[in-house]
Amino acid sequence: MEKIKVFAPATVANVGPGFDVLGLAIDGIGDELEVIKIDNGIKINPISGFEDLPVDPKKNVIGVAIQALLDETKLSNGFEINVKKRVMPGSGLGSSASSSAAAVFAVNELLGQPYSRQELVKFAMEGERCASGKAHADNVTPALLGGFTIVRSYTPLDVVNVPYPKDLHVVVVHPQIEVKTSDSKRILKKDVSLETAISQWGNVAGLIAGLATENYELIGRSLEDYIVEPIRSVLIPGYDGAKKLAMENGALGCSISGSGPSIFALTKGKATAEKIGTAFTNYYSSLEIDHKVYLSAINAEGAKVI
Amino acid sequence: MEKIKVFAPATVANVGPGFDVLGLAIDGIGDELEVIKIDNGIKINPISGFEDLPVDPKKNVIGVAIQALLDETKLSNGFEINVKKRVMPGSGLGSSASSSAAAVFAVNELLGQPYSRQELVKFAMEGERCASGKAHADNVTPALLGGFTIVRSYTPLDVVNVPYPKDLHVVVVHPQIEVKTSDSKRILKKDVSLETAISQWGNVAGLIAGLATENYELIGRSLEDYIVEPIRSVLIPGYDGAKKLAMENGALGCSISGSGPSIFALTKGKATAEKIGTAFTNYYSSLEIDHKVYLSAINAEGAKVI
Repeated sequence: MEKIKVFAPATVANVGPGFDVLGLAIDGIGDELEVIKIDNGIKINPISGFEDLPVDPKKNVIGVAIQALLDETKLSNGFEINVKKRVMPGSGLGSSASSSAAAVFAVNELLGQPYSRQELVKFAMEGERCASGKAHADNVTPALLGGFTIVRSYTPLDVVNVPYPKDLHVVVVHPQIEVKTSDSKRILKKDVSLETAISQWGNVAGLIAGLATENYELIGRSLEDYIVEPIRSVLIPGYDGAKKLAMENGALGCSISGSGPSIFALTKGKATAEKIGTAFTNYYSSLEIDHKVYLSAINAEGAKVI
Repeated sequence: MEKIKVFAPATVANVGPGFDVLGLAIDGIGDELEVIKIDNGIKINPISGFEDLPVDPKKNVIGVAIQALLDETKLSNGFEINVKKRVMPGSGLGSSASSSAAAVFAVNELLGQPYSRQELVKFAMEGERCASGKAHADNVTPALLGGFTIVRSYTPLDVVNVPYPKDLHVVVVHPQIEVKTSDSKRILKKDVSLETAISQWGNVAGLIAGLATENYELIGRSLEDYIVEPIRSVLIPGYDGAKKLAMENGALGCSISGSGPSIFALTKGKATAEKIGTAFTNYYSSLEIDHKVYLSAINAEGAKVI
């Protein structure tokens, strides 16, 4: 195989209480990469619509993630990459993760699949380190594996899928104001009270149990985040109003997607997701804030050849 | 019905990373109560083998838990209680929870089941408040419900069962040195670093996912506790040696039961539990520390009529 086209989905990280640990993949939005074998080097062509993204492979998450894979394999293959970027940087929907995941997935295919999807996570994480200064895995894991994922441990890296009910849907609104992950991380406190941490992992336990046993009500009750949402939500215009609308329109729960500013709600069924999507659109239109709404089932596939 | 005999099992609270949230019920050890309707008042007869436990119903967990139930029902029934206490106070195996759970379960049966098992938890918690100063629910919940349980939230109280693989076994060693829950709580720090909390809820997520998907290896990898074990284990003689032996003999994981000093290990299958039980016995005999070993599948029933 000399070239390949791949897709990796946008993702919602944290998912309520699971800061830095939980994530899920969205259907219908993600980055597309065409990766072509060349003699040597990594050549990233200018990215249409995102001309300010660097094409230097040492500064672009795609180049960094591919190089991490090549460094471990001791291979010196070359690749040229054409990018159709659909996930907007700074949206809180795993923009860099989508590109990094797609890149290592494509290269792994072209090299004859030396790695499993789980093993690819650590290379894609180097893309995240390049984007935000920290090699976090909560977006790249669902972007590669699909579904609902847990980063159980970073040292050693241990990522697993959780089963989830098939009628679970996600609705996301992206108010188009950039929040850089690095800024958004900085405002978090270094310590939390043990009491608050206990409440948080009570919800983490409830959320995983609710997903695995298809208990929608338990999923909903467990989505509350006591640690990150109170701090980060103040950076997101209209957050409280949007969350109130989601809950009034039947959301199981609603919280910040990744570092924001995107807001996600989980629902049982597509109809409720659509209703909330309309409410989000009307609300942000009334605030005169540019925004996009995405409706989706959970993406079960993760990165894929297209 | 004028009288009833009931049993409520001993329990392991915390279960590795799930401090104040997770718990499981043990087979084969628990408190037995005979509860007899009388005209009025709560009369607790002296408890054989535990003559220093108070029989004043305002000071005994059984009386306090029953009174909490009667206060809510606005009933003024009287009950006389005979106790066969099998779970040693201060063992870390939910001694007070076993008595409290049995008491409210028995009274609920005698009154014609006005409450569900879940609803009985809040009354049994008042017994815990009497015993330790804090109305914790992580022992009374599995003592009432059986199985593996989550206290997702205290306000409002929300307790749920988690499915678990049927071949999961528990082996417990109780080095017979009293550790009072109130002392053991006092030495915990009020704050934890966000980084450590994230590692902890990564393991909580992994543990629940492992239980629900019958993934024994994931259960094992997730049992590590970064917050409580490093502080409390120093109070338990032989802790590091016992844990090392458990792991060498095939335990999935090993940690402190409740506030200790009991130590539990989870295993796949009874044979491994027996092997570890023998290793625990030999080890604590060599240290000349009195001890008891309990081997058990997970108790699926919780409190029951006998």
